Amino acid sequence: MAVFTPVTLDDLSQWITQFDLGKALAIKGIPSGIENTNFFITTEFGEYVLTIFENLSFEQLPFYLNLMRHLAERGVLVPAPIATHQGNLINALHGKPAAIVSKLEGSSQMEPQAVHCAAVGAMLARMHIAAENFPIRQPNLRGLAWRNETAPIVMPYLSDSNKQLLAEEMAFQNAFAESDTYHQLQNGPIHADLFRNNVMFSGDHLTGFFDFYFAGCDTWLFDVAVTVNDWCIDVETGVLDQERVRAMLDAYHHVRPFTAAEQAAWQTMLRAGALRFWLSRLYDFHLPRDAEMLTPHDPGHFERILRLRIEQATPPLFTSAG
Amino acid sequence: MAVFTPVTLDDLSQWITQFDLGKALAIKGIPSGIENTNFFITTEFGEYVLTIFENLSFEQLPFYLNLMRHLAERGVLVPAPIATHQGNLINALHGKPAAIVSKLEGSSQMEPQAVHCAAVGAMLARMHIAAENFPIRQPNLRGLAWRNETAPIVMPYLSDSNKQLLAEEMAFQNAFAESDTYHQLQNGPIHADLFRNNVMFSGDHLTGFFDFYFAGCDTWLFDVAVTVNDWCIDVETGVLDQERVRAMLDAYHHVRPFTAAEQAAWQTMLRAGALRFWLSRLYDFHLPRDAEMLTPHDPGHFERILRLRIEQATPPLFTSAG
Repeated sequence: MAVFTPVTLDDLSQWITQFDLGKALAIKGIPSGIENTNFFITTEFGEYVLTIFENLSFEQLPFYLNLMRHLAERGVLVPAPIATHQGNLINALHGKPAAIVSKLEGSSQMEPQAVHCAAVGAMLARMHIAAENFPIRQPNLRGLAWRNETAPIVMPYLSDSNKQLLAEEMAFQNAFAESDTYHQLQNGPIHADLFRNNVMFSGDHLTGFFDFYFAGCDTWLFDVAVTVNDWCIDVETGVLDQERVRAMLDAYHHVRPFTAAEQAAWQTMLRAGALRFWLSRLYDFHLPRDAEMLTPHDPGHFERILRLRIEQATPPLFTSAG
Repeated sequence: MAVFTPVTLDDLSQWITQFDLGKALAIKGIPSGIENTNFFITTEFGEYVLTIFENLSFEQLPFYLNLMRHLAERGVLVPAPIATHQGNLINALHGKPAAIVSKLEGSSQMEPQAVHCAAVGAMLARMHIAAENFPIRQPNLRGLAWRNETAPIVMPYLSDSNKQLLAEEMAFQNAFAESDTYHQLQNGPIHADLFRNNVMFSGDHLTGFFDFYFAGCDTWLFDVAVTVNDWCIDVETGVLDQERVRAMLDAYHHVRPFTAAEQAAWQTMLRAGALRFWLSRLYDFHLPRDAEMLTPHDPGHFERILRLRIEQATPPLFTSAG
């Protein structure tokens, strides 16, 4: 996807004077992200990431930026937001909210092995614990309410078999949200979008989670499900790879033990994780917002994953030995 | 100097549970520092530095720890204090205040060349600017008031020629502190102890300033003088190395231009920087506080530097081309 809001070096040179980062030397658009415009920027004093928020408001942003600061302060590896001289994390650029964060070392690991999945699982558990007492509450904006709004919008575009799948899954998830088991699940700020391209590795060493702009309060288990659904699968088929699943879940469980309620909810959450991304991809595919958005993700990927999570045996969340 | 307060792995294992850093795996005393006890600690999730404050009180510490956080948040390279789960930076360990900060990469550059001095000068200017609006004010605890208290205590131990030097320099510095020039100097939080062993380099790349526990509000120029007096000298003689002086001052001036008042005060501040460390070393040499403190620094080093700064031509703080 192309950059939404163009920023020239001249624009940046003026804007960056409110930070203590020295003169701007270079700016380069990052061709990724579908909600924000991102740039690598180089100043006299280092390299940073500039994000312009295309859809998020000044009211929503303190949650994301302060959550990152809260996590960084507790030793969780995430980009540290850079404050202006006056102490502000969010500042208008071309009339839109924007922020600068530190640039993580390394690159994304797009062919993760068990060792990478274990590192992600352990850091995810650390993140959940460290975020537990974060004082700002903001819901997962792609949670059940959003899904209930979005399903009818995309429904007309679907084949009959997919209409049935979506209707049944929505009913199933809405029923589960009323259950005792659901209300026993641990809840707090989650990343909610921890795909392979939102984690940096330097070799096998995890250097940080980033892109917290889908974060919100939801069940911790939903975060685990979204992460497993991306990191621990065969990308072609969506089938879970048992070795990577075990590595991620065991590493998480070692840091923050799963509960019996979470075990009971595990398959449902794997389905919920698939549903959430199937819905957003259906929406972006059938109702693209912007002509620049040329290559929407294939919704079929998460349709396959949802069907597999319904049909196939679910690996245990934890084992008695775990 | 030996570690003051012993901390075992068992002690640490219990204490560290209030942080989100996982289980403690190792602890190793760092044989340096004369005011604090420092340890490298390794947890499941990384390496950190644990500091126990031997002389500083719970009341004084928020200045240091929050200053480091303020600087880190603005992109200045300093160790980031790690908060507990509850958000506290300072916590009692064996009845003394203690803190954990991130460990900087690299090692000290004990034979600095011009390239290192330039990096230190530029970062020092960034630090001064970024700290300018730090809201907590705490004086330099080794400032003129402390010097006026300390000079009479060490005076009886000095030779006649050193008695004369100290008396004359104290009179000179007290007179200067009343001058218009002094009151025109930029003032704010300074490091105040930025010696070679308090900066990390990875190769020629500066990775951070540390040990902020002598920091306080004083003139920025005093900080520059202390730094030049350590980084830009021949260690044997104390004589300034013109190439390194020029590299450090020009790099600082490029980021934060020196003023005419600072130029007028420059020689006096170089003398003040030498005086401050001569006094503390005289005190530690003649009135050692602790039997464990076996190898006090030689006070003669800063006596030589003070005499040189009085007698020798002072390099300009900045040049018209600078």
